[in-house]
Amino acid sequence: MIAEILSTGEEIRCGAVVDTNAAHIARRLEEMGVAVRRHLCVGDGLDAISRALAEMGTRADLVVVTGGLGPTQDDRTAQAAAAAAGVACTMNTAALDAMEAFFNNRGRPMTDANRKQARLPQGADWLANPVGTAPGFRLTMGECRFYFLPGVPREMRRMLETAVLPDLEKRLGQPRSVGRTRTLVTFGLTESATGEQLDGFGSLFPDLGIGFQIRFPEILVRIHGRDGSADRLESRLDEAARWACDRLGERVVSLTGASMAEVVGGLLRGHGATLAMAESCTGGLMAHWLTEVPGSSDYFRFSGVVYANAAKTAVLGVPETILARFGAVSQETARTMAEGARRVAGTDWGLATTGIAGPGGGSAEKPVGTVCIGLAGPHGVDAFRHHFPFGDRDMNKRVFAVTALDRLRRSLLLR
Amino acid sequence: MIAEILSTGEEIRCGAVVDTNAAHIARRLEEMGVAVRRHLCVGDGLDAISRALAEMGTRADLVVVTGGLGPTQDDRTAQAAAAAAGVACTMNTAALDAMEAFFNNRGRPMTDANRKQARLPQGADWLANPVGTAPGFRLTMGECRFYFLPGVPREMRRMLETAVLPDLEKRLGQPRSVGRTRTLVTFGLTESATGEQLDGFGSLFPDLGIGFQIRFPEILVRIHGRDGSADRLESRLDEAARWACDRLGERVVSLTGASMAEVVGGLLRGHGATLAMAESCTGGLMAHWLTEVPGSSDYFRFSGVVYANAAKTAVLGVPETILARFGAVSQETARTMAEGARRVAGTDWGLATTGIAGPGGGSAEKPVGTVCIGLAGPHGVDAFRHHFPFGDRDMNKRVFAVTALDRLRRSLLLR
Repeated sequence: MIAEILSTGEEIRCGAVVDTNAAHIARRLEEMGVAVRRHLCVGDGLDAISRALAEMGTRADLVVVTGGLGPTQDDRTAQAAAAAAGVACTMNTAALDAMEAFFNNRGRPMTDANRKQARLPQGADWLANPVGTAPGFRLTMGECRFYFLPGVPREMRRMLETAVLPDLEKRLGQPRSVGRTRTLVTFGLTESATGEQLDGFGSLFPDLGIGFQIRFPEILVRIHGRDGSADRLESRLDEAARWACDRLGERVVSLTGASMAEVVGGLLRGHGATLAMAESCTGGLMAHWLTEVPGSSDYFRFSGVVYANAAKTAVLGVPETILARFGAVSQETARTMAEGARRVAGTDWGLATTGIAGPGGGSAEKPVGTVCIGLAGPHGVDAFRHHFPFGDRDMNKRVFAVTALDRLRRSLLLR
Repeated sequence: MIAEILSTGEEIRCGAVVDTNAAHIARRLEEMGVAVRRHLCVGDGLDAISRALAEMGTRADLVVVTGGLGPTQDDRTAQAAAAAAGVACTMNTAALDAMEAFFNNRGRPMTDANRKQARLPQGADWLANPVGTAPGFRLTMGECRFYFLPGVPREMRRMLETAVLPDLEKRLGQPRSVGRTRTLVTFGLTESATGEQLDGFGSLFPDLGIGFQIRFPEILVRIHGRDGSADRLESRLDEAARWACDRLGERVVSLTGASMAEVVGGLLRGHGATLAMAESCTGGLMAHWLTEVPGSSDYFRFSGVVYANAAKTAVLGVPETILARFGAVSQETARTMAEGARRVAGTDWGLATTGIAGPGGGSAEKPVGTVCIGLAGPHGVDAFRHHFPFGDRDMNKRVFAVTALDRLRRSLLLR
């Protein structure tokens, strides 16, 4: 079965926004054993969309379309689909009922613009959108089945799982080969150095594939395969993942795609331990990552985002003499910040960052990219100093935060 | 002039990697006044690429192609271009000389695989790659000019600036039309309600286009146009932006695409004022957003991420009696948190959030999605309570944080 993907929208066409939907859809289809041949992107013009649909219908068995299902005047995908199919748009009562229920549940009024969204091409099957108002739909033209989904990534992803993939599953039937991917999250090597550590993978596992992706500063290693037996494939992927872990050692953060913050949270929970932090250069990013994980209040108590020196002293009790003698960016300050956070919040662990994210603030002795990390625990306190060469504020904040969390992760692994 | 963009490569086709090249190229071309009509992505197969090139050549005046110029066996773009043009590949001496110089400079040996990269389609003009080994080239087929660039984003971007855009500039000559976009960041209405406020745009500004994008919880309104005179277009866009501002009022956060955090930071700087925060349910997200902006240390002093009640008391001095009587999620607690942050850090403003992001922790009286916001300033302290219906932890954190920053923004606007 050959699939194509169509992304619509002016913001994507003119490059204001990077299209992440196409990659997500391609990955999920490929995992199911559907070959994706092309992605195409056009703007929001009626002609541009309907022409693209007509072309794709002559080449593919399956097309997934995103975008242009919203309530505003630039949302023209339903009309374009109707034009391509040579039918009219009519009010779809199932879609309208679902939208009315959605608005009632939220106590919000439904507008005429919203009502317009329920007008679908004749012959289209409505697809429920559990997380938004834009209804999706399915439409067959000739030999090709089209699925129309909203462009908002969260809504698109949900509907792909609930409406598109189960429908495809039925259509594909059994038996057929399954595709699976194992995602190793790693930290501490560059992409090319990670690849070199895993040289020889191809000859040891000729039946599997391997790919690398930068989710800065983490490097994801994806091991993927396809087999008629899911059990056989899983055990083969286990074997390959074990081999990769042996080569990469402690640099492997998780075997499940879980992020550094999720892994650190899981370790704290496993130890029944609590954490407080003091963040200068990471500016709240570590706390934000930790509190993205549901249930994090079980182990995360406090982070003092102490941008000003006065706050370091007032909130964490960092002595002014330390700041004056060693400077705010120093291992000595990082150490007292970690101890202060731990003491103030009464936790088992205290983790602190102080550094220079840039673009300003660097010096010959402490250039942009310098970070000092303090880690206070049940058995004492340590401090570390690193320098990273990225010269970019956002990258520095991220690599500082992951490096600090990695120090805590490694300490928790030893216990 | 009509342009299309072709991205090649298995990692993009199968969705392992998100294609950021197409958006970058589209944005740069549009800025020069070239209308981008389509982006297409195919894998690395010879047929797939040459067929795509042949199709695009019949539709466009200009095509920018990325990927498949490397030294390995999956790099087939030069062959595919030769096949589409009906010519052979031959050794290009300019390309070969440049590669030899590149390797000599770095003291690395040049392999036969590298030498293969200098074989370009007959009639192609070599394009220098100042930052890598893969040579680019330019090839005209029929009425369409193709530019072939490497897929590595850093190399592609550099060559786009040094080799493609200057060449285009010459070809376009003067006068020609330019494309411009004005991005309004708004907060406070849904996408459909925003669209309804701007009903009538099309008849008032038939020469301009309008588009909407959700960057949750902000809604971006993009007004775009194209004109032979950049000055006339700018003043027309100004007029349209003013009209939109009149309709949307205080819900317009910026006219420049600047985020809520950037705007709040700019207002604080303009007032010479300083800020401290206390974040419970937003978990450091407000501090992270504020400190993403370079120079934020000029106005941002401290945020206490006080997840635990004990930390609210120890760090911010929230009385235990307030917590016991009204609960952690209450306007009374939010008020004392804001005052506490302001007092501890000695700032002009104190901003606090306490709420229930979910999935757990809700009750009938205080359901998931409830947030209380405290705002302490030079003229007193206020507290607000909101409820949002999203039922998603990540969305709740984001909408809580933007709502709190918006309270501060509106107060600063009044001064």
